[in-house]
This record gives sequence, C-alpha cells and structure tokens, in this order.
Amino acid sequence: MTLKPVGKDDLPALSKSRLRLWLKLLKASSLLEEHVRRHLREEFQTTLPRFDVMSALSRSPEGLKMSQISDKLRVSNGNVTGIVDRLTEEGLALRVAVPGDRRAALVVLTPKGQAAFAEQAAAHESWINGLLDRLDADDVEGMNRRLDYLNDTLEERD
Amino acid sequence: MTLKPVGKDDLPALSKSRLRLWLKLLKASSLLEEHVRRHLREEFQTTLPRFDVMSALSRSPEGLKMSQISDKLRVSNGNVTGIVDRLTEEGLALRVAVPGDRRAALVVLTPKGQAAFAEQAAAHESWINGLLDRLDADDVEGMNRRLDYLNDTLEERD
Repeated sequence: MTLKPVGKDDLPALSKSRLRLWLKLLKASSLLEEHVRRHLREEFQTTLPRFDVMSALSRSPEGLKMSQISDKLRVSNGNVTGIVDRLTEEGLALRVAVPGDRRAALVVLTPKGQAAFAEQAAAHESWINGLLDRLDADDVEGMNRRLDYLNDTLEERD
Repeated sequence: MTLKPVGKDDLPALSKSRLRLWLKLLKASSLLEEHVRRHLREEFQTTLPRFDVMSALSRSPEGLKMSQISDKLRVSNGNVTGIVDRLTEEGLALRVAVPGDRRAALVVLTPKGQAAFAEQAAAHESWINGLLDRLDADDVEGMNRRLDYLNDTLEERD
C-alpha cells in the first residue's frame, strides 16, 4: 500500500500505518530472537538469558552487583540468581566480596568465562550477519538511523 | 557513524552494523511492548497475553481451537487455557462444541467480548499513534517497506 497523506488530514491512514509498523517491528524482533535462541541452544547448549547475563558481565570487567545484572538484561529477567550460580559452578564466573559492604558481592567473569563468551559473541554476530545478509549497507544504515530516532523518542516518554 | 563500504571489502563494518540493527530492533520492540503492557494494565486491568488471545479470537469470528489460539499469539504463549477459562467466566468468550468431534471445542468471543476488545483495540491504536507521533508518513512508510523486506527474508529461513 502506498501512503500519501494529504496534509494533516489523513491521520487515520497514518495511525493505521504506525500500528502496522509496531506489529512489523514485533514480528522482526520475534523472528530474529527465535533464530538466536535456536542457534544458542544447538551450537552452545545455552539460553538467551544466560547469554545476556554473560554479555552484561563481559561489558563490565570491574564486576556487577546482582541488581545491576538484572537492570542490564535485554530480553528477559530470567532467573539471574540461578544463572549466576550455574556460571560460578562451571568456573565461568566468580562472586567477589566488596570490602566494607558485607552484604554486597560483585560478579565477574573468569578468564575461562571471558573466552567462552567471546566465542559465543562472535558466533552471534555471524548468525545475525547471515540472517540480515539481504540488507545491504544502505538498507541497514537507513533502518539504524530511523530506529535511533524512534528509540530516542520512546525513551523520552519514560 | 556514516557507513561507506568500499565494494564488498568492508564486510566487518557491515556485519557490526547489522548486529547494531538487531539490537536496536530489540530495543524498539521492548520499549513499545513495555508501554503497551503498562497502558493495558492501567487502563483496562488486562495483560498483553490476554489482549493477544482476544485479538486472535476477534479476527476469527468462526471460532478457534485452543491449539490455533496458541499458534496465533504474537508475543507470549502465556497460559492460553487459563486465559480462555477467565474470559469464559467473565462472559467474554464461549466454548462451542464441534459436531462430530467430541474432543474438539471452538472458542468464540461473545458480543460482550467483541465490544470489550473493540474498545481495547481502538485504545491500543491510539497509544501507538501517540508513541510514534514523531515519525511522519515518510518515516513510517520507509520503515514499513524495509521491515516487510526483512520479515520476508527471515520467514524464508525457517
């Protein structure tokens, strides 16, 4: 459908078109997420919440409190405590006491955890690159620019 | 960042740019979903899975089997049985026996359910229209066109 609003008078059509944009965005992110979940499971026997926790930790080498990990998760709260417990048992993360704050602990990735996540992150980038390979640089750039604008306006509403 | 790939040689930059596209898509749909969930809760004391079930039923006046409802859900599987039970208790949906198939039942919205959903759907469109009001017709059209292309390519991968 070609949308040609006449001045400000065609608001109903624009409103429908914005509604379709939301449904298409949701579809695109759901489809991509489904692919990523499947690849993580099949190639690394891991889950998206666990990948997200490791990703947050890898971006904060100084360590994160449990509450900070939850705040940074992209998709799902998952069960952060359970995930950190498993990562610790497997030698991929460590809980480090904070001097002067008996109840706080920082979680950090171990070198083994950093190496494991680096491998998963590289694979993740290559899956996405493959899934989006029919979008050329102009397509990607055009979408990124519009999504930045959209995300900026949505964050201002919070 | 301006992306100016030199022929096919700039694949690493394009790959990073595609990765950013995925993260931005996820962010946009998460932000929008969060707004929609909050509005549904505050204005209609309802949830997104319940809204989605009613939406699926409203698009199928001939009725849907439970398994068909699950298949059509956009976001979350939620607990379709529990949701349909509640809708039925509240007089918003009905289970109808299928002649000749003792175990099957079709779920349909009652007229009261149709009216309740029509009100929620109109409000939903107006929230989205408000949230996206800084995207003009060209922005929306440009994104819809690219998202259609993206979704088509992603569906072909399944």
